[in-house]
Amino acid sequence: MIRHTDLQNYLIRLFEQMGCPQAHAADVATLLVDAELRGIPSHGLMRVKDYYQMAKAGRINLRPQPQVVHQTPSTATVDGDNAFGPVSGLYAMRVAIDKARQSGTGWVAVRNSNHFGIAGHYAMMALEHDMIGIALTNANPLVCPTNSVSKYLGTNPIAVAIPTQEQPPFVADFATTPIARGKLALLGKKGERAPQGLLQDAEGRPTDDPDILMHGGGIMTLGGDVAHGGHKGFCITALVDIFSAVLGGANFGPFVPPQVAYLPLLDRQVGQGLGHFFGAMRIDAFRPAADFKASMDEWVATFRAAKSGAEQPPVQIPGDAERKNAERNRREGISIIPQVLADLNEVAAELGVESIDY
Amino acid sequence: MIRHTDLQNYLIRLFEQMGCPQAHAADVATLLVDAELRGIPSHGLMRVKDYYQMAKAGRINLRPQPQVVHQTPSTATVDGDNAFGPVSGLYAMRVAIDKARQSGTGWVAVRNSNHFGIAGHYAMMALEHDMIGIALTNANPLVCPTNSVSKYLGTNPIAVAIPTQEQPPFVADFATTPIARGKLALLGKKGERAPQGLLQDAEGRPTDDPDILMHGGGIMTLGGDVAHGGHKGFCITALVDIFSAVLGGANFGPFVPPQVAYLPLLDRQVGQGLGHFFGAMRIDAFRPAADFKASMDEWVATFRAAKSGAEQPPVQIPGDAERKNAERNRREGISIIPQVLADLNEVAAELGVESIDY
Repeated sequence: MIRHTDLQNYLIRLFEQMGCPQAHAADVATLLVDAELRGIPSHGLMRVKDYYQMAKAGRINLRPQPQVVHQTPSTATVDGDNAFGPVSGLYAMRVAIDKARQSGTGWVAVRNSNHFGIAGHYAMMALEHDMIGIALTNANPLVCPTNSVSKYLGTNPIAVAIPTQEQPPFVADFATTPIARGKLALLGKKGERAPQGLLQDAEGRPTDDPDILMHGGGIMTLGGDVAHGGHKGFCITALVDIFSAVLGGANFGPFVPPQVAYLPLLDRQVGQGLGHFFGAMRIDAFRPAADFKASMDEWVATFRAAKSGAEQPPVQIPGDAERKNAERNRREGISIIPQVLADLNEVAAELGVESIDY
Repeated sequence: MIRHTDLQNYLIRLFEQMGCPQAHAADVATLLVDAELRGIPSHGLMRVKDYYQMAKAGRINLRPQPQVVHQTPSTATVDGDNAFGPVSGLYAMRVAIDKARQSGTGWVAVRNSNHFGIAGHYAMMALEHDMIGIALTNANPLVCPTNSVSKYLGTNPIAVAIPTQEQPPFVADFATTPIARGKLALLGKKGERAPQGLLQDAEGRPTDDPDILMHGGGIMTLGGDVAHGGHKGFCITALVDIFSAVLGGANFGPFVPPQVAYLPLLDRQVGQGLGHFFGAMRIDAFRPAADFKASMDEWVATFRAAKSGAEQPPVQIPGDAERKNAERNRREGISIIPQVLADLNEVAAELGVESIDY
């Protein structure tokens, strides 16, 4: 176990040693640690080696200056200057919050960025300002549009954080695909099959083989086939791609640059880097904040009291699970699995930093 | 067959005779006719009898004055004054577009409204202004949150219309549930079963009985059970409810007032009427409009060229099917099924209007 504050400090040193200014190292560390706190390790320490190798390959600008390149009273477009995603992402979300303070809402499209960690972190930044926060990003393609075998879309997450008064905030943060790549890999290692209706083979036929991504297959959109509403899932994942990329001028769909150094850059670019989209909405831009929060408390209490089905657990409000993880991990510390620890120490050794005290 | 312009004029007369001012009668007619044009008859003429009976029961204000009751440079809250949904909806979407003209984006929450027809119509109003249009609404509950048997959410549609240059616009307009009530009724009448994974019985157990809604069962969220990502579908449908209702002060989830006169009003209200949420975003608030549209053309062309799976039809871009329906129906006229025609003429007779010339 390691305390999250110690982990944060260690990661700052690691990323400073990599060449980042201290403030940027802190941005990256904040996103990685928050992923660990909230129980989403796929976006936490597991990424350090990938981030490092991307930097080492010269595919990340370690001294970037993200900036607003276009704006109106309620919008901005940010050029991320090929920064680590958390650097451009945090910069852009702060711009969105500033715009919302001035104009009621703020909406920021980001181009020329990279993998930004957990979307929920950005959305939750709005909460302390009594704002709704929104964060979207596109991602490397492994999802097939309905009826197609072309892997043209990423797992493209949506995060929305909504303020409450007495209740914990509503924090939805989900990949818009039915299953994540990491979960498939785990099933494959265990020799188990995937649920039906999530995967297709290279010819577009249904399969339950969790390793199918390595054999030309793809993940279906949320819903699965047309009979199960998969075309609606396609709309949702496509919208995240368009808002994240087309709005600000980043690469969309199949052109999103790989976020791991062992995959080569694509020959063709249709924009700059990977893209995000952020929103902040003052709740008092619509109703007095206290009224909104009382009503939101009632919403949460109503849904929490919904009756469970036979042998089913209680209804969870979006954010419940991650909040409980974060409370526990802040108290008890963060655990690191051996493979991730080894990778972390390998990076540290290359950078001439001492091993992590774990 | 009837020409859509003749149908529009006939409906205006019908709703004027019902007591609506001409401009409001035209609003309602516009939404009903557009649903027929775009091939979504569940939101077209089928609704005339329901709308009429709601008005006759005194549950609709036939002389409403929707108005902005709260605003910032980029937002407004509209009180719909218990108008027919298309009246308050069109008013609010125009406010959103005006706000966007001034501030880059415009966001309008509506309370105290009613069934507003097809969401796509409102979203598409933004296109001619080189804006992205967004329309959400909540609806009568028949959908169960993940793990629950409480029918607490509606089919809560999302519509997003995005401008293009040479390509037809991208127009997503979809209920966020995997299947619509109308499709289930049709399966039931034909004696067919529903696909697995969409429905649950009164105890929350999976069923393929398309009539299960009449026996205490409910529709599952997009994705179905947790193994298939249904909890993400819950997030999406819940977000539409919160944006449509909590933001502006309408009734959320289980408290949405029934939109048919044969169902009594609920004892408890947590807000006013049914709610909507509209957005308009100037594309040149992010990039020069020509750049955005060229990039969006490329997005559409890329996805249209995605390779189909074995025995699967070509990939459809959201809006393709409805646009083809509208082109055909504008040319050839709108067909009305006998039951709907009979209902329409019954309403006309009660109002002292001649039967429709069909």
